[in-house]
Amino acid sequence: MTRVAVLGAKGRMGSTSAEAIEAADGLELVARIDVDDDLATIEEAGAEAALVFTTPDVAFDQARWCLERGIHVVIGTSGFGDDKVGQLREIVADHDGVGAIVVPNFSIGAVLMMRFAAVAAPFFESVEVIEMHHPDKVDAPSGTAVRTAEVIAEARREAGSPGLPDATTTDPDGARGAKVAGIPVHAVRARGFIASQEVLLGDPGEIFSIRHDSSSRESFMPGVVAALRWIPGHPGVTVGLDEVLGLD
Amino acid sequence: MTRVAVLGAKGRMGSTSAEAIEAADGLELVARIDVDDDLATIEEAGAEAALVFTTPDVAFDQARWCLERGIHVVIGTSGFGDDKVGQLREIVADHDGVGAIVVPNFSIGAVLMMRFAAVAAPFFESVEVIEMHHPDKVDAPSGTAVRTAEVIAEARREAGSPGLPDATTTDPDGARGAKVAGIPVHAVRARGFIASQEVLLGDPGEIFSIRHDSSSRESFMPGVVAALRWIPGHPGVTVGLDEVLGLD
Amino acid sequence: MTRVAVLGAKGRMGSTSAEAIEAADGLELVARIDVDDDLATIEEAGAEAALVFTTPDVAFDQARWCLERGIHVVIGTSGFGDDKVGQLREIVADHDGVGAIVVPNFSIGAVLMMRFAAVAAPFFESVEVIEMHHPDKVDAPSGTAVRTAEVIAEARREAGSPGLPDATTTDPDGARGAKVAGIPVHAVRARGFIASQEVLLGDPGEIFSIRHDSSSRESFMPGVVAALRWIPGHPGVTVGLDEVLGLD
Amino acid sequence: MTRVAVLGAKGRMGSTSAEAIEAADGLELVARIDVDDDLATIEEAGAEAALVFTTPDVAFDQARWCLERGIHVVIGTSGFGDDKVGQLREIVADHDGVGAIVVPNFSIGAVLMMRFAAVAAPFFESVEVIEMHHPDKVDAPSGTAVRTAEVIAEARREAGSPGLPDATTTDPDGARGAKVAGIPVHAVRARGFIASQEVLLGDPGEIFSIRHDSSSRESFMPGVVAALRWIPGHPGVTVGLDEVLGLD
Repeated sequence: MTRVAVLGAKGRMGSTSAEAIEAADGLELVARIDVDDDLATIEEAGAEAALVFTTPDVAFDQARWCLERGIHVVIGTSGFGDDKVGQLREIVADHDGVGAIVVPNFSIGAVLMMRFAAVAAPFFESVEVIEMHHPDKVDAPSGTAVRTAEVIAEARREAGSPGLPDATTTDPDGARGAKVAGIPVHAVRARGFIASQEVLLGDPGEIFSIRHDSSSRESFMPGVVAALRWIPGHPGVTVGLDEVLGLD
Repeated sequence: MTRVAVLGAKGRMGSTSAEAIEAADGLELVARIDVDDDLATIEEAGAEAALVFTTPDVAFDQARWCLERGIHVVIGTSGFGDDKVGQLREIVADHDGVGAIVVPNFSIGAVLMMRFAAVAAPFFESVEVIEMHHPDKVDAPSGTAVRTAEVIAEARREAGSPGLPDATTTDPDGARGAKVAGIPVHAVRARGFIASQEVLLGDPGEIFSIRHDSSSRESFMPGVVAALRWIPGHPGVTVGLDEVLGLD
Repeated sequence: MTRVAVLGAKGRMGSTSAEAIEAADGLELVARIDVDDDLATIEEAGAEAALVFTTPDVAFDQARWCLERGIHVVIGTSGFGDDKVGQLREIVADHDGVGAIVVPNFSIGAVLMMRFAAVAAPFFESVEVIEMHHPDKVDAPSGTAVRTAEVIAEARREAGSPGLPDATTTDPDGARGAKVAGIPVHAVRARGFIASQEVLLGDPGEIFSIRHDSSSRESFMPGVVAALRWIPGHPGVTVGLDEVLGLD
Repeated sequence: MTRVAVLGAKGRMGSTSAEAIEAADGLELVARIDVDDDLATIEEAGAEAALVFTTPDVAFDQARWCLERGIHVVIGTSGFGDDKVGQLREIVADHDGVGAIVVPNFSIGAVLMMRFAAVAAPFFESVEVIEMHHPDKVDAPSGTAVRTAEVIAEARREAGSPGLPDATTTDPDGARGAKVAGIPVHAVRARGFIASQEVLLGDPGEIFSIRHDSSSRESFMPGVVAALRWIPGHPGVTVGLDEVLGLD
């Protein structure tokens, strides 16, 4: 049984996660920390792991505070780039046995989609990405679609795959979409979608597709729970769920 | 039994149609006319209807030749716009009982998709069109996608539907695709597709989609046969398969 | 502005509907009636229309009570078969100008899917229905799938369509699914679905599909609102949303 | 450059493969052997590898003949079960450096689908398989669907996954389909499909799907070519394309 503190427990991801932790075998919720709460509560509650969903301005310092006290951290706050990950590695190096994992995307479905897309991409002549989100989203394409296109492009480059065939010479209004790392990416914005994405791969006489439809925050909970169960046995700094899921 | 002549019988659509006519109940293939053949053969064979798949430069004159002799025509050659349709009306007006039908798209599936999209569009907040074709296609979006977007836009205008919701403010690479008559249209070009299209409609909590996948010229044959069976009883000039299919 | 009373206002459909009515142009919520409330409140509140989502044992008597007082009714309670519809007709015949509509399915998407499936079915050689619901559902196939198969079968019978091609001779475990009115129906039960259905139609070289994915009760609200706006101008008894949507 | 002989060169798979070999870099077609041809031609032509697509009654003896002469074999003939694979191992053990690969399915898309389904299955609560084929197919479900269900079941058993949730108590006509190794499998038979399959995986709030649509024999060619390129460097007996594709 791992004793868990949730930081940012009143936020949407934090509160949904708190419920999921309470329902999960092997995890025990011992502290809900919000913006005005004293971090000392975490230690007093005997937390072994902290789940960090606080805002980017405080998340790093809170993670450091935990790691320095031997408390493992699972970081869901966005914006932990190479820079901050490097700093986490320095902190962890000084505290034997403690682990930190930075998770840009807790959706196991999204992680599997990216992995499968990367494995499959070199075997097909064509590949394109279509992402579908609600129309209140302000940016296109989605971060997941960009990352998916990047891992596809990287896999094809490593395999020595040729460029994608495309005879288009007339496209006055931009129907062919965006090119991200050379991979066409299309963004649909329609009421009724929450977050969906499809990767289409094609060869003569066949289409292979991988699709993920997410309709609620609930879909992130298996990833949150898996990371919390995994972190106590894995010191050091890890990025992404791939290793947690045994995909490496 | 309707006696049919195929004009352009050595072309891809003409030759596939000739086979379909031979296999169809109620139709009898009596003449295969190609570029060097004398049109008189059509009359000598006793053809009651002519299927025109010749090139745009000769198709109109051939259709006129048939109509003036009381032979109904089904025109599959592309490029019969309002201008030529008007001329056909004048010819037909002088020849009692003869019928001409101009068919821009013989795919019953494509015709149904457009019709259903137009009927459904006013009932949903969002609508987008995704078309998928082989990567040797030079233009994007496809003519069918443009026509679909136009009929959707027209249906929404008539119903007084508001504009589509879209909060996108950041889309540096054009992932949101083309806007055709205000409707977002996305074009995928991937090996493995022949001609596919999906219309996505969305409301809070639901997605409605209409999709057509065509994988061979065979899929146009039911439309060709239906038009040939229908034309003898329908004098005057008709455009499109809608009336043939009983959709009007 | 139509003044509306909701009967069964504490139930799931009733309470969601009450919110939707409050948000809708042209409708005003004037009474929320629940199991212990006096129906007289409906009249006192000056309701012109009543939305009935109470249980089957009381819904009919409540509808009668409203109709006898000149209050139009929209009935969402299930179980209003030919028998009860006939009784409604008798009541309405005695009360000039009052209207009742019985709506087995408020999902506009589901209604459109059934209508489009019926229109398209005679044009294709093959047709099958796949419905997908959450795994807590106790019956298979769904009522909507059964109704869809029935309207497809009826449309094909009227059109004189032949039987569906199927060379299956070996299917020891029943993978070909159920036959409803001669139409194959498949039921998927998987976590993550709420209520989805796809109608697949096929001809040589093409597949045509119509799909509806519903992920929340919200998706029924446009149908509820449309029925309430429509009923005041349409005396008599109506069954289903088709006429409300202008599909007849 | 590997010199290749095709055995069964007049059959459908053999003749399509012969064309693909002629077009492929690194392979040279040196002999087309059919039922009445002398096997000695293979050796005379200097073939280094033989592609076997002959009928089950002669394929094994032909493979043995090749292996005994140091010619690698790629076997596409169906029906090479554990028994024959064992005999192949004995033959190969006596002939140093020669390799044989038995390939039940040359579709890279189908192989990837099975692999991905097995990897993903333990991460989701629900999983079902839907396969779609032309209506002239006599057996249901397809061999690929059965194999897919088996690898999914095996992956879940190894991971200790619980049984699939399913509250169905009423299913009079069998809409829930077949259970293969405990996994629901549905078979659609509709004109317009050649060979398609979708694996649906679900968790609360999300659906993950992997789909493969094959519309021609062409789609098997990349697998045929990959196996022929791979076999010269891989002595011993191999079953399936997984290792060829680097999936192991």
